[in-house]
Amino acid sequence: MQPLDERQIQVGVLGATGTVGQRFIVLLAEHPFFVIRALGASARSAGKTYAKAVNWKQTSPIPTIVRDTIVNECTPDQFAECSVIFSGLDADAAGDIEKAFRDADHAVFSNAKNYRRDPLVPLIVPLANPGHLNMVHQQRSLHSPPLQKGFIVTNANCSTTAYVVPLAALEKSFGPIESCIVTTMQAISGGGYPGVPSLDIMDNIIPYISGEEEKIEWETLKILGGITEADDGTKTFDMHAKNPLRISASCNRVPVIDGHTECVSVRFKRRPPPSPQQVREAMAAYTPDIQAVGCPSAPRHAIFVHEEVDRPQPRLDRYYQNGAGVSVGRVRQCAVLDVKFVVLANNVSIGAATSSILNAELAVMKGYVNY
Amino acid sequence: MQPLDERQIQVGVLGATGTVGQRFIVLLAEHPFFVIRALGASARSAGKTYAKAVNWKQTSPIPTIVRDTIVNECTPDQFAECSVIFSGLDADAAGDIEKAFRDADHAVFSNAKNYRRDPLVPLIVPLANPGHLNMVHQQRSLHSPPLQKGFIVTNANCSTTAYVVPLAALEKSFGPIESCIVTTMQAISGGGYPGVPSLDIMDNIIPYISGEEEKIEWETLKILGGITEADDGTKTFDMHAKNPLRISASCNRVPVIDGHTECVSVRFKRRPPPSPQQVREAMAAYTPDIQAVGCPSAPRHAIFVHEEVDRPQPRLDRYYQNGAGVSVGRVRQCAVLDVKFVVLANNVSIGAATSSILNAELAVMKGYVNY
Amino acid sequence: MQPLDERQIQVGVLGATGTVGQRFIVLLAEHPFFVIRALGASARSAGKTYAKAVNWKQTSPIPTIVRDTIVNECTPDQFAECSVIFSGLDADAAGDIEKAFRDADHAVFSNAKNYRRDPLVPLIVPLANPGHLNMVHQQRSLHSPPLQKGFIVTNANCSTTAYVVPLAALEKSFGPIESCIVTTMQAISGGGYPGVPSLDIMDNIIPYISGEEEKIEWETLKILGGITEADDGTKTFDMHAKNPLRISASCNRVPVIDGHTECVSVRFKRRPPPSPQQVREAMAAYTPDIQAVGCPSAPRHAIFVHEEVDRPQPRLDRYYQNGAGVSVGRVRQCAVLDVKFVVLANNVSIGAATSSILNAELAVMKGYVNY
Amino acid sequence: MQPLDERQIQVGVLGATGTVGQRFIVLLAEHPFFVIRALGASARSAGKTYAKAVNWKQTSPIPTIVRDTIVNECTPDQFAECSVIFSGLDADAAGDIEKAFRDADHAVFSNAKNYRRDPLVPLIVPLANPGHLNMVHQQRSLHSPPLQKGFIVTNANCSTTAYVVPLAALEKSFGPIESCIVTTMQAISGGGYPGVPSLDIMDNIIPYISGEEEKIEWETLKILGGITEADDGTKTFDMHAKNPLRISASCNRVPVIDGHTECVSVRFKRRPPPSPQQVREAMAAYTPDIQAVGCPSAPRHAIFVHEEVDRPQPRLDRYYQNGAGVSVGRVRQCAVLDVKFVVLANNVSIGAATSSILNAELAVMKGYVNY
Repeated sequence: MQPLDERQIQVGVLGATGTVGQRFIVLLAEHPFFVIRALGASARSAGKTYAKAVNWKQTSPIPTIVRDTIVNECTPDQFAECSVIFSGLDADAAGDIEKAFRDADHAVFSNAKNYRRDPLVPLIVPLANPGHLNMVHQQRSLHSPPLQKGFIVTNANCSTTAYVVPLAALEKSFGPIESCIVTTMQAISGGGYPGVPSLDIMDNIIPYISGEEEKIEWETLKILGGITEADDGTKTFDMHAKNPLRISASCNRVPVIDGHTECVSVRFKRRPPPSPQQVREAMAAYTPDIQAVGCPSAPRHAIFVHEEVDRPQPRLDRYYQNGAGVSVGRVRQCAVLDVKFVVLANNVSIGAATSSILNAELAVMKGYVNY
Repeated sequence: MQPLDERQIQVGVLGATGTVGQRFIVLLAEHPFFVIRALGASARSAGKTYAKAVNWKQTSPIPTIVRDTIVNECTPDQFAECSVIFSGLDADAAGDIEKAFRDADHAVFSNAKNYRRDPLVPLIVPLANPGHLNMVHQQRSLHSPPLQKGFIVTNANCSTTAYVVPLAALEKSFGPIESCIVTTMQAISGGGYPGVPSLDIMDNIIPYISGEEEKIEWETLKILGGITEADDGTKTFDMHAKNPLRISASCNRVPVIDGHTECVSVRFKRRPPPSPQQVREAMAAYTPDIQAVGCPSAPRHAIFVHEEVDRPQPRLDRYYQNGAGVSVGRVRQCAVLDVKFVVLANNVSIGAATSSILNAELAVMKGYVNY
Repeated sequence: MQPLDERQIQVGVLGATGTVGQRFIVLLAEHPFFVIRALGASARSAGKTYAKAVNWKQTSPIPTIVRDTIVNECTPDQFAECSVIFSGLDADAAGDIEKAFRDADHAVFSNAKNYRRDPLVPLIVPLANPGHLNMVHQQRSLHSPPLQKGFIVTNANCSTTAYVVPLAALEKSFGPIESCIVTTMQAISGGGYPGVPSLDIMDNIIPYISGEEEKIEWETLKILGGITEADDGTKTFDMHAKNPLRISASCNRVPVIDGHTECVSVRFKRRPPPSPQQVREAMAAYTPDIQAVGCPSAPRHAIFVHEEVDRPQPRLDRYYQNGAGVSVGRVRQCAVLDVKFVVLANNVSIGAATSSILNAELAVMKGYVNY
Repeated sequence: MQPLDERQIQVGVLGATGTVGQRFIVLLAEHPFFVIRALGASARSAGKTYAKAVNWKQTSPIPTIVRDTIVNECTPDQFAECSVIFSGLDADAAGDIEKAFRDADHAVFSNAKNYRRDPLVPLIVPLANPGHLNMVHQQRSLHSPPLQKGFIVTNANCSTTAYVVPLAALEKSFGPIESCIVTTMQAISGGGYPGVPSLDIMDNIIPYISGEEEKIEWETLKILGGITEADDGTKTFDMHAKNPLRISASCNRVPVIDGHTECVSVRFKRRPPPSPQQVREAMAAYTPDIQAVGCPSAPRHAIFVHEEVDRPQPRLDRYYQNGAGVSVGRVRQCAVLDVKFVVLANNVSIGAATSSILNAELAVMKGYVNY
């Protein structure tokens, strides 16, 4: 464990031996102010050094600072010094454990799906709806007993994250989107490890991912919707209710290691709709707050707009900006809706660990987490 | 060359050494009444035995009956005894050569794109619009001088063929489709040989195939449209004009060897639209004329409707019925249009050579080609 | 279940829902004299129809004759009418179950590793050492109590099977081999289902397969060795002891679906050694007994010798002869040993189920199993 | 073009738009003392900006410093200010062009095969035989007229480079190797672009690479051999003649994007031979001169020795140390020769551009090239 200076914040990683956990560790090992203090995993791993406990699958070696760290079980008392908790837990474990950490007054940034539909938990794609973070006040105050520092913030499903960023850019420039058809081609790493058997996916497409289409269709409404405030001050996620938004998703698993590619068609409420060129410009100019407030992991281009006719491509574009932005290409008219385009996002970076880290950076910048 | 009996028809194959040509040969070598009589290829191959000329890439050995056949150049005088000509020529050669064979009074069944937009040439997906074959009369009579036996019939682009079969089934049962969004995931064999470099497609998606989206959007109108007859008896392909049909295609190359998978959403003119269950039943019950008239290469199921939630898959389903039918699965409601589903077709079988052969079988059955 | 004629033999399949079991069923469904009578699987599958119990992964549909067959547990009383038992059981179950079936006087043909090293059980690669079948007499007579009909015959590991066929051909023509270095590139289907995770093998090589090198090095000695008879008539597998044979294997998993490719270098005892051309001719002419006695599943060419410089290739050559033979190519001098070559075998056909079936056919032909 | 300081050396890149050329540019754009001054390519590219001329296939964007550089034809007058020339030219162009640059007194570091067998040109694998660089004196002096600064140094074929590094380490510690059998599994990027068609390599192995086995067998002798000096001072590469070395190579193309994996068995002259553990230790401790003299691109570990039983793997290990070292694993006894192991090298890094750059760095450090 490295020494701390006063601008550093100690963090813990839950599910540290899993796919998302490994990615958290790679990213946090070089972070300017988050410092890994504790690692949590299942009882099977607890008590071992991280190097012994993990089946390391990254292309860089295990960071030196965690090689010999003893892995703990995922109980808050082992993480007392950690202001921030990153959770890469699987859904079957995340529910109880993340709640226990929040109840113990930790700020939890979760990649799991369990609390995404909770009416008090912000579901934040940092390049799309960072403003939802302010729901944290209400989450704390309605807790029994009220929390001082604890809260849960989740990020979205990896396939939602990819296409919701350009949708957010478009709504910012052109007003409400009315409907959207999205077809995804998702990388195998989105299924975790061991995930998809090679016999199922080599030389093949699986045109189905359990629960994925429902996640996209639901999460998009929460993310792109606003927050309404009742007369008594109670805030509610409005699910894009003022301008109903219809989403239709078709999800496919493809033999690509990393990087989700998605073909998107949208129809705007505004008539006439923006032209493809206006869409391209709006996307290229899009600057989410996460950039404005200076989050160190924010990409320079939230959306990189390709001019080449055959981009983005996962193998060539997934590493751009360390996977923290999204890439868009082939913006053109749609003969059925208004405009169509292709979007690519690195599902293990901005689609997972990077988003949690960006959300935590934002929480620090906005004062929800203290040094 | 095997001996003929009176029920056999001698055929020639143009572009015999290419990808589609090889597939023609595999299929024709076991055909009940077509017998390969002559093979045509470029000047580079002419004069060699087929075994020497070809870079054979099929998983079965070169059929014995053509191993030692001497390859000719693609000039009609070398094919005088062939009533039927199958063309697997590339587009850069097909235009002049196919015309020369038609002018020499051959019945030409072409897999090339050159004559697909010709107003006198039927563009026939045998499982969708076999009735267009009767345009052949006008094609012959308007030729100068009029032709006795010659004509050209083309089949569609492989990606069009796949999804137009279920669309034809739906229009037959439920009336006009109003709009359709289709996203394709196309196999590398669709690009011919050598085709896509491995460095471009391994662990990758290329979200663009030159000219492909335009082909799908245009060809669908010709195939699903009717034929209108003017007062003077002149027939015209109506391009679905009475009920305008808007098609929006997004085409992707994926690392799959054979089999195009396509995600399709459709909106019907009829309100209320049919339910997913009605759609499933209509597809399963669909019987194109090609089956009714007894074409020997016709599949038993024009459309096989899968019940499993994760099918069709190219690697598991592309060989079913020797690749002569199409597979549909995941029929369900679309939140934006009406119904969505997944369709799979073997692009080198029904998407290419098998369709040409079915068209030729139909022409024989209907009396356009004589024994 | 189809009706039997007097030339048919009823068989059971153990491990019927697994990868090897599925392959047994595909092959047996079209067999000229074996008729599937009963299917066995784990308690989890027992009581269900086969179609419900199996996660079918073959490219042809489930054969009609077994779709509705009720799956049993693997206990002999459920298989009383089966003269022949094919076992596709995993090693953790095969030991006890196969023994129980033998004790109940069944002829068991096993693909599992459990009894391969048993000094009374023949380890037979049907294209290499069919003569070892006669050890069955001693296996029966030394059993307590002696068996009338029961015995176990195993086939070899898939990677052993591939290269031991050309080695057998070479020893038959040129006498003992002294040493052999073999490097394998093994398909993922060799690891069963779910087997190798896609994240481990896409765009990758795994230079290690647990236990595989030891199997090759040991099994080869048993297969290529002879049977010695003591003065009291007791027979023993001699493990090639009269002419010690040194084998060095390096095993790799590669991203190929089916078909093991192996690079082999051999040194003969005979000086001077045979030339590459003599080796080619000996392999092409090699005719194991399995062909001579008319086993219906025997390939026409035990070893197909390719002349093309870049063959055999798994994707192009694994289906030849329905996967029942092996392919050899690139026979040339080795600067260190004597001769080197490449061998390919379809690991799910001749490398697994096809070998068991051939062994059973041989046992029928030789009178070890009665109609 | 960035400004120079006095410790910088201007370089040119020939074949700048090709696969190796692109890799040179990625590496040189961040080099501590080499500065790209000029780019050369074919007449088709000359006159265009680099961004326009190149079909960029790297995963990082085109470096800013070359985006707008105008590409030249490969004639020395366009490269007058370049002390060092890196050549990524194809073999069909490299012969004449590299000679022209040497004749114009440039120091040429070539990745092409043309001069590898030239008796005056060092064939240097920087982690194996950097000492051969001193042949440059004789190359200059025997040139007519003698050269002041010009020379050609080549690096080895990518598949040779991989395994010759551990062989060099072994000979350094244990004396001459007597024989070696190597089986390679080579990545598709070794074939350049467009290189291997995807239809040939997906789900497949090609057990043949034209000329590759001969290159390995010949180049190894030149690299591992010494330099003998006649009485008149004439130096000759001795091709390991004092201790004849027999090499037998079998080369395979596999569906891996980057990284050649090789299974190697060696026999030492020394009896008894070193144990696997001694071999491991010798490899891990091996420090070629390239590290000692401080070449900035030298890896920290020339040979990284893996302890895990299933490493090295190309996808996990090819990026280690930016691809500048080699990885070895599975060191164990060979039942036929003495010791066997697996070696992995990144064929586009240490197997190509990185080796040329290391050779050039060495030449700078040793004073063969001046600032």
